[in-house]
Amino acid sequence: MFEHLPQTVTVFEVGPRDGLQNEATQVPVQDKIALIEALADAGLAEIEITSFVSPKWIPQLADARELAYALLQDTAREAQNKRFARSNLNLSALVPNIKGYETAKETGLKQINLFLSASEAHSKKNINKSVAEAMSVMGEVASVAKADGKRVRCYVSTVWVCPYQGQVDPQVVLDMVPRLFAMGIDEISLGDTVGAATPKQVFDLVNRLRNYTDLSKIALHFHDTRGGALANVLAGLEAGVTIFDSSIGGLGGCPYAPGASGNLATEDLVYMLHGMGVKTGVDLQKLTEAGSLAQNILHKTLPGRYLKAHLAQSQKCEAVK
Amino acid sequence: MFEHLPQTVTVFEVGPRDGLQNEATQVPVQDKIALIEALADAGLAEIEITSFVSPKWIPQLADARELAYALLQDTAREAQNKRFARSNLNLSALVPNIKGYETAKETGLKQINLFLSASEAHSKKNINKSVAEAMSVMGEVASVAKADGKRVRCYVSTVWVCPYQGQVDPQVVLDMVPRLFAMGIDEISLGDTVGAATPKQVFDLVNRLRNYTDLSKIALHFHDTRGGALANVLAGLEAGVTIFDSSIGGLGGCPYAPGASGNLATEDLVYMLHGMGVKTGVDLQKLTEAGSLAQNILHKTLPGRYLKAHLAQSQKCEAVK
Repeated sequence: MFEHLPQTVTVFEVGPRDGLQNEATQVPVQDKIALIEALADAGLAEIEITSFVSPKWIPQLADARELAYALLQDTAREAQNKRFARSNLNLSALVPNIKGYETAKETGLKQINLFLSASEAHSKKNINKSVAEAMSVMGEVASVAKADGKRVRCYVSTVWVCPYQGQVDPQVVLDMVPRLFAMGIDEISLGDTVGAATPKQVFDLVNRLRNYTDLSKIALHFHDTRGGALANVLAGLEAGVTIFDSSIGGLGGCPYAPGASGNLATEDLVYMLHGMGVKTGVDLQKLTEAGSLAQNILHKTLPGRYLKAHLAQSQKCEAVK
Repeated sequence: MFEHLPQTVTVFEVGPRDGLQNEATQVPVQDKIALIEALADAGLAEIEITSFVSPKWIPQLADARELAYALLQDTAREAQNKRFARSNLNLSALVPNIKGYETAKETGLKQINLFLSASEAHSKKNINKSVAEAMSVMGEVASVAKADGKRVRCYVSTVWVCPYQGQVDPQVVLDMVPRLFAMGIDEISLGDTVGAATPKQVFDLVNRLRNYTDLSKIALHFHDTRGGALANVLAGLEAGVTIFDSSIGGLGGCPYAPGASGNLATEDLVYMLHGMGVKTGVDLQKLTEAGSLAQNILHKTLPGRYLKAHLAQSQKCEAVK
């Protein structure tokens, strides 16, 4: 174990989208800008800033267009001041259909992120389409986006376990991946949507995936619903994946109940990676400040463990042991 | 990875001691009995039931003697009813010194657990002794206990990181382990007391330990303070360890602040192990009931993630993705 750890891993930050879309609080656009800037300042190079879905469905992200304009203008403006001058900073947004894409395109975003489910039951429940129908819609959007020179990521949900149909047949995912890349998709993020996957099944799937694709184009998206997200990251790392999704402070990710865990916390991920000598380009101290900012913006404590430990009062326990 | 997974792992349950000793609530002895019985019913074979320290220090466990008598009598009585008739059920208790040992011995407990720190700073702060002094005291107690036919476990705290002196030199631990076994100690539990260890350093230490001892006598005790406990378990498993400590619902373990994580939750550990095909003898459904009972007894929600996920209302998120 650990003989082939990568030198560097890319941390893909989903907090401003996957996180905020599940929050009850309506966050003003100025606060979103501040949070995203803090995340970028901490060294995160890949940040999903919002989702271009109908405000009817996700009112929390109704300011998507305004936010994207503000950030992209800021980036260009700041580039001259060298403050935000990160040529490797890649802002992206979730797009559900061609309409959402057209709006995203206007803002000048360079990357869009599409999504579908590996399981039929989840696909039906989530977007009322079969997997085949979802792939077809995705193919259209991907085609237009690629012709426009955009980079395109695709999330695949419920890759190991579906909340409705249980365990998902790995062959379904293995067959889907090459078809997605054939549409021109640049990167696929395989997601454990309900946080039920365990490390051996993660390792086995990724290992088998080597026969179907170049693993450098694969990302893993874990939820910490049963405490296993970092163990799954470790298995994914060992299997050869070098891109991992996470959310500042463990924000969002569809927890079943208040306090239940959802997304893997970015601070926890970065702490573990650095501890193993794997670089991420992230400054953990600045990242913790971004997490603290997120808590202030949302007026709540986030579930991320590293964040809690570092913001806690230094109360040492009076344990005899 | 995963080529040499063990068929079985022993889960060593510390909730009733390591958990309850850090709780503000004074739990009546009847409730402690009920909790321990629920843990045993769930299939846990190793349960640390209490600590024989002065009630002046740990009032929460002042009923240690009464509890031990009640359980050991129950076990004997129930054995005739076959309800608690588990010949593999091993109840143990923490013992700080010879005085605590004498009380423990009276109750008929078959195993005592001793403790010391790998780091000088933590040893001084925790029990006001140097490591050498602590080993000397431990040697005396171990010697008497072994002569009485008891099984003896030893906890080593701050094996990787000390909250006062930082990173701990692995050689200190590697040198200590054979000396502890030479005292007659039967099992050593190496602890990441502040939840700061990362998987590679866990793997490296255990790997090196192979040259010093038989790994079957080594247990690992992780805290989830930075979300990495299960990743550390995975590394320990890969390195050859087959005994892991945990606490029902993630109870206790010296969190720095309310809500901060301490002990690895037993449910989370068992879920991951079972998912990888590793047997534990534990019934996860019954274990979750024990976790629920612990919450009722303590009038609070525990941090364990599997427990939260399974007790939560079935509220599915309305995520577009």
